[in-house]
Amino acid sequence: MNQTIGKKVWAIPEGYIPDWSNGPSPQMLSHETVCILNTSKQEARVEIMIYFSDREPVGPYKLTIPAERTRHIRFNNLENPEPIPRDTDYASVIQSNVAIVVQHSRLDSRQAENALLTTIAYAQ
Amino acid sequence: MNQTIGKKVWAIPEGYIPDWSNGPSPQMLSHETVCILNTSKQEARVEIMIYFSDREPVGPYKLTIPAERTRHIRFNNLENPEPIPRDTDYASVIQSNVAIVVQHSRLDSRQAENALLTTIAYAQ
Amino acid sequence: MNQTIGKKVWAIPEGYIPDWSNGPSPQMLSHETVCILNTSKQEARVEIMIYFSDREPVGPYKLTIPAERTRHIRFNNLENPEPIPRDTDYASVIQSNVAIVVQHSRLDSRQAENALLTTIAYAQ
Amino acid sequence: MNQTIGKKVWAIPEGYIPDWSNGPSPQMLSHETVCILNTSKQEARVEIMIYFSDREPVGPYKLTIPAERTRHIRFNNLENPEPIPRDTDYASVIQSNVAIVVQHSRLDSRQAENALLTTIAYAQ
Repeated sequence: MNQTIGKKVWAIPEGYIPDWSNGPSPQMLSHETVCILNTSKQEARVEIMIYFSDREPVGPYKLTIPAERTRHIRFNNLENPEPIPRDTDYASVIQSNVAIVVQHSRLDSRQAENALLTTIAYAQ
Repeated sequence: MNQTIGKKVWAIPEGYIPDWSNGPSPQMLSHETVCILNTSKQEARVEIMIYFSDREPVGPYKLTIPAERTRHIRFNNLENPEPIPRDTDYASVIQSNVAIVVQHSRLDSRQAENALLTTIAYAQ
Repeated sequence: MNQTIGKKVWAIPEGYIPDWSNGPSPQMLSHETVCILNTSKQEARVEIMIYFSDREPVGPYKLTIPAERTRHIRFNNLENPEPIPRDTDYASVIQSNVAIVVQHSRLDSRQAENALLTTIAYAQ
Repeated sequence: MNQTIGKKVWAIPEGYIPDWSNGPSPQMLSHETVCILNTSKQEARVEIMIYFSDREPVGPYKLTIPAERTRHIRFNNLENPEPIPRDTDYASVIQSNVAIVVQHSRLDSRQAENALLTTIAYAQ
């Protein structure tokens, strides 16, 4: 496949990392994930900005997705410039130098049984 | 980021606030949420209209989202002009004076374990 | 609001009505729902076609949505020309004479705890 | 309906097949599904490519969807050129010779109660 699929700017208004979990880690650790697909023949340099309800945006968090690879990145694991606080509303904007496709998902294991959500992010 | 992302008119056909909950409040109170991201440099003035199956629309519910902020608004908490009835089908239209991004989500805790859903709203 | 929002043709590839339930009816009866919002000033005349994996499409199922109203229609309740079989894969196409917005959701209560899914349908 | 609905290129960045299940098979076997609707009057020849985080893409997996039919295909069941590994992040690109509509869903039955997610895929 030589075709590049996607857009360069994506947004996810809903962000929330639950602050507790049930079940074996890492599979059932509560997590909020951004899944990025790079179908292009070049590495994607991605920058994520995090928006809050009551303070200035934080970022960029810098990531790379190799050519023709996917990465499923847990917001829980973003550390630089700072970890994302738990039990706090946030939103994210994902920008890339090449076209990518972005999907948002969450596993919430705060109670004994898992809950899942997902959506393709908003592309522009 | 100087770029403004999104559109000014959004719709969510699915609305329903469960009328009971399990688990600690406020995290596990059953809730229906509209998550709004305003990446612009100016305050967003947002108006929400609520549509029903059997009576005239109600609204506008007026909100503001500061520049470069997100707000995750629970329909449960909308009070003016009137609270949204529980256990009742509704839909919503969200309009803003600047471009925003809108995502819909629900936590249903009527049973012992949570259920979650989400989707990016319909943009026009 | 004088603005009409949406499109006239929508599709939902995922359709499946679970064939059993737990919990009080009708709230927790397993159901598959199409939520339609008509923001226009005129009645929407809607036709739904149901597609299967191994036989000819069935329909149209005819519905009306009054001006400035929403209807959350359970596929379980569609009867004419014929009920939709349970535990069977199907898909649906929704067409309207005026612009509408369509969202798909499911409550699956086959086990003790509910599971939920939703997505804005595909618009054309 | 003579109208063909959809696009020819679709992407799903989020892919993950849980590696265990609870409940009766096949309904409650954990599964990841791509639901494809072909409203056209001709057979759709579909090719799926699978992308990983740490190795070359695999595929194409070749499928056909008859005219005016839907198929809900479990990634679990794709065998040729090779099965998709469990408990592994992947993404998929779906290409067709005619316009189709694609939706992604998952049933996760690793714990006693089911969790569900769905989204319309990204179309281009």
